[in-house]
Amino acid sequence: MSTTASGRPARRRGRPSRAETGDGTPRTRDRILDSARTEFAERGYDKASIRAIARGAEVNPALVHHYFGTKEQVFAAAVAAAAAPATQGLPQDSQFAADEFGVRFTRLFFGIWENPATRIPLLAIVRSAVNNETAARIFRGFVTAQLLSRVTGGLNTPDAELRAELAAAQLVGTVLLRYVLKAEPLASTDAEELIRRLAPVVQHHLTGDAGRALD
Amino acid sequence: MSTTASGRPARRRGRPSRAETGDGTPRTRDRILDSARTEFAERGYDKASIRAIARGAEVNPALVHHYFGTKEQVFAAAVAAAAAPATQGLPQDSQFAADEFGVRFTRLFFGIWENPATRIPLLAIVRSAVNNETAARIFRGFVTAQLLSRVTGGLNTPDAELRAELAAAQLVGTVLLRYVLKAEPLASTDAEELIRRLAPVVQHHLTGDAGRALD
Repeated sequence: MSTTASGRPARRRGRPSRAETGDGTPRTRDRILDSARTEFAERGYDKASIRAIARGAEVNPALVHHYFGTKEQVFAAAVAAAAAPATQGLPQDSQFAADEFGVRFTRLFFGIWENPATRIPLLAIVRSAVNNETAARIFRGFVTAQLLSRVTGGLNTPDAELRAELAAAQLVGTVLLRYVLKAEPLASTDAEELIRRLAPVVQHHLTGDAGRALD
Repeated sequence: MSTTASGRPARRRGRPSRAETGDGTPRTRDRILDSARTEFAERGYDKASIRAIARGAEVNPALVHHYFGTKEQVFAAAVAAAAAPATQGLPQDSQFAADEFGVRFTRLFFGIWENPATRIPLLAIVRSAVNNETAARIFRGFVTAQLLSRVTGGLNTPDAELRAELAAAQLVGTVLLRYVLKAEPLASTDAEELIRRLAPVVQHHLTGDAGRALD
């Protein structure tokens, strides 16, 4: 493959050559995904383009389509990649006891959001989802299928989905106030103190007596 | 004042004339504010312009500056106007007993968000705040000064601000999942059922035993 003066592969127009598609190692796929996350983060879902994602990954745009399909599908893959640390930490089949969900889930959630490597791509996705109906639909589908269903799988009530969403609302709202709006004192409160205060509330939503006075 | 064929006042360049500034009735001010809310809603804080706000209100751009100052100050006024139904409903000096805060505040909050006339401008403001640091700062200042301080005024604890923010996080996160991401079943659950489930949680954040197991 020809290279530019900087040593990067030269870009070509049209369909990917056999050499390019043949180079379908995980590294190429990951490079496209990294570029997609950067592009969605910097420009939002609306303005992001397959062309720019390809440019960032130093591949032909057709290769982006080859691996991921449409722009919607690239976004869905970027959401899944950004959230991978969260989904990997969740039990596959109710490894947590139901009465541990509050503290386990809250701690896992803050672990992801306190780490800039996972927070920054997730923030970009939340911003896109807040601004664009298509991105919102993809994000919603992912959250429901990959996150909430794993929590509700461990709950044995007909209102499990609503319970999981109200618990998620507490945590997502905290993210919005702490990391996006940077409201004080919430933004500078120690994460452990927030886990201490929020875990019982998350647990209550998931398994408590809904609607009962708590204090 | 000269008028166009459509009967609207003709726009002129430069400083507002004596006739235009002299016409400083509440109606002109309200018309500018309405136009500002529409402009911020449709284009977001970044892309909104004083020129377009003036065009929408059919006034000279200088009149927008005359009434409101900079773009930041126009945005702050638009935030205050959109949130007026919320702030007007709040007690000025702890008219609610502390043990009623949960249900009163939660009910007031849903009253505002269930009504499209108040929901739509508020959603636009939240979107702007999520996307722009300046808009986030203005929104944060408003929420702290106008909303949270009225709640914390009725609480007699050193951690009143943090408590009010964690309660706000529960409600704001619910707004995000229900009205923006439209997550089901939360999006189609009756508001009364949500108030029933959330009021005790809001009350717990405000006055409960923080960190205690609830169930």
